[in-house]
Amino acid sequence: MKIAVDAMGGDNAPKVVVQGAVKASDELGVDIILVGDSKVISVELGDKGERDHIRVHHCGEVVLMDESPFKAVRSKRDSSIRVAFDILKNGEADAVVSAGNSGATMAAAIITLGKVEGVERPALACVIPGDESKVILIDVGGNVDCRPVHILQFGIMANAFATSCLGLQRPKVGILNIGLEAGKGNEQVRLAYDLLQKSPLNFVGNVEGRDIFSGQVDIVVCDGFIGNVALKLSEGLAESVTYRLKESMMGSLTGRALALLGRSLFKRIEETLDYAEYGGAPILGIKGVGIVCHGNSSARAIKNAIKMAVNYVENRVQDRLSGQIAEFQALF
Amino acid sequence: MKIAVDAMGGDNAPKVVVQGAVKASDELGVDIILVGDSKVISVELGDKGERDHIRVHHCGEVVLMDESPFKAVRSKRDSSIRVAFDILKNGEADAVVSAGNSGATMAAAIITLGKVEGVERPALACVIPGDESKVILIDVGGNVDCRPVHILQFGIMANAFATSCLGLQRPKVGILNIGLEAGKGNEQVRLAYDLLQKSPLNFVGNVEGRDIFSGQVDIVVCDGFIGNVALKLSEGLAESVTYRLKESMMGSLTGRALALLGRSLFKRIEETLDYAEYGGAPILGIKGVGIVCHGNSSARAIKNAIKMAVNYVENRVQDRLSGQIAEFQALF
Repeated sequence: MKIAVDAMGGDNAPKVVVQGAVKASDELGVDIILVGDSKVISVELGDKGERDHIRVHHCGEVVLMDESPFKAVRSKRDSSIRVAFDILKNGEADAVVSAGNSGATMAAAIITLGKVEGVERPALACVIPGDESKVILIDVGGNVDCRPVHILQFGIMANAFATSCLGLQRPKVGILNIGLEAGKGNEQVRLAYDLLQKSPLNFVGNVEGRDIFSGQVDIVVCDGFIGNVALKLSEGLAESVTYRLKESMMGSLTGRALALLGRSLFKRIEETLDYAEYGGAPILGIKGVGIVCHGNSSARAIKNAIKMAVNYVENRVQDRLSGQIAEFQALF
Repeated sequence: MKIAVDAMGGDNAPKVVVQGAVKASDELGVDIILVGDSKVISVELGDKGERDHIRVHHCGEVVLMDESPFKAVRSKRDSSIRVAFDILKNGEADAVVSAGNSGATMAAAIITLGKVEGVERPALACVIPGDESKVILIDVGGNVDCRPVHILQFGIMANAFATSCLGLQRPKVGILNIGLEAGKGNEQVRLAYDLLQKSPLNFVGNVEGRDIFSGQVDIVVCDGFIGNVALKLSEGLAESVTYRLKESMMGSLTGRALALLGRSLFKRIEETLDYAEYGGAPILGIKGVGIVCHGNSSARAIKNAIKMAVNYVENRVQDRLSGQIAEFQALF
């Protein structure tokens, strides 16, 4: 198994990305191709440099975090994210992992690999650690102004991913809405509700914002605008809560004493709240495997994303996804 | 000052609502009219029954939490929420406070009092406790399929509320979007962005989900669909975090010991996270004062909502709001 890693992508690249990739290679035994500026990558690799399972593929450009995705990917043909997908396309790698500009990663995947037959809009599926079990929120990738059929397709693609990769038998699918009763919400959601109900998915109806974390459903489908806002809001709130916890603890003598006593416990609580730690989000609906990581990913998150890529390839998610999209074609 | 309180509205009504109203009367010196079934309210009022500042106004119906708002308010003319607004309309009260069906409360306000001249859609403004300062999120009331001009009006109304009620001089207004750069987002948001930029509001551009809590802006405007999802998501996540904190602490011996030692501290942390405690959300754009409370409100939350109602009336928010809507008319 060979994973092409965009070594230049992310707030802490290349340092943390290289660390995470080396960790993944050591622990999972996968081959890594680090794509990016070979000079700076070599520095990060240290004395040992390239080794048996770690290769560097040089390229000279980088897509920056605030660049317009499709424009940047089209014009920067020698950028690390574009080259990583070229390597995949040429059969030299099985998957791409990137913590760079997520829009550009999706754009590079679509431009280089193309969409799965029948899929109108590839989407980003985020695995969120819920109270009881994991929940997939799709689309968080910014597919704005979705038509109802796109939302149905998000459900079908996430279903294929959840059954093959997360081991779920018949995942419960809900649509994000402002109330539980049928007929609630805006036009887009009401029409998507009808389509989902006619589909063979295990559709359980509307869910509200609070249900994303309650574990009542396994998959939450929504327009990419609202999914992206919801994901960033969750991250912001989790950070805010951690910050307040610290303030609150440090603001009192008892608190300071407790924090000293329970430093390891406190660390564990922080980790539980750390939504950046779920690893990566797969791009569903492209002809290949692409995993998007949080820009602020730690080495552990990069390693977990590589693990997800391996899992995705081994479980042939893409075949199942193509099959289910073809099977449900009559609904589109 | 007289506040009509919907004694039958909310998950813990009438008990907790009556408790909160009595507390508010004692502490703030306001007159309270408890609207609802006089028999059950009397039981809650106990031996002292009605007193100088607390009166009961009997009515025989209740709008339930899952009823269709406009239909229920139109058909149940003797429901507590409808009657509370009738009392306000007749000049016997200065404001209405309800923890009942929030859609029905908005519907009753619109049907009974009518909209402020020029306002197309009254909206619910939620005051969220941010890290540094309070943030107003508007609309959280479920105004779905908003046109860009509605979002502009939400900004103007929240501006009037923030300057008169929260003491802000020139509140910074941001629009909820999936990226910070101009031109991001769906069509609705891009057009609303242009309108806001042309307005005399202190518009600072796009904000992302994470910025709701960061205190970078004072007012966040958005479609009522996304605002409602965002609010419920925040509540759900705050609950989930509290739950995990407890689990995490109770799961270890050190944690259990710490929890015992720091019980009061822990309680303070929980309160900081308790988004149900901000009191109430004003309905902006109606001809009168209506405050919506969380269905799960505690007595303290009800008291805080009554305090907000008093604040709203005393600061003549509605006059300022009407004035600003009239002033900006050329933009609509």
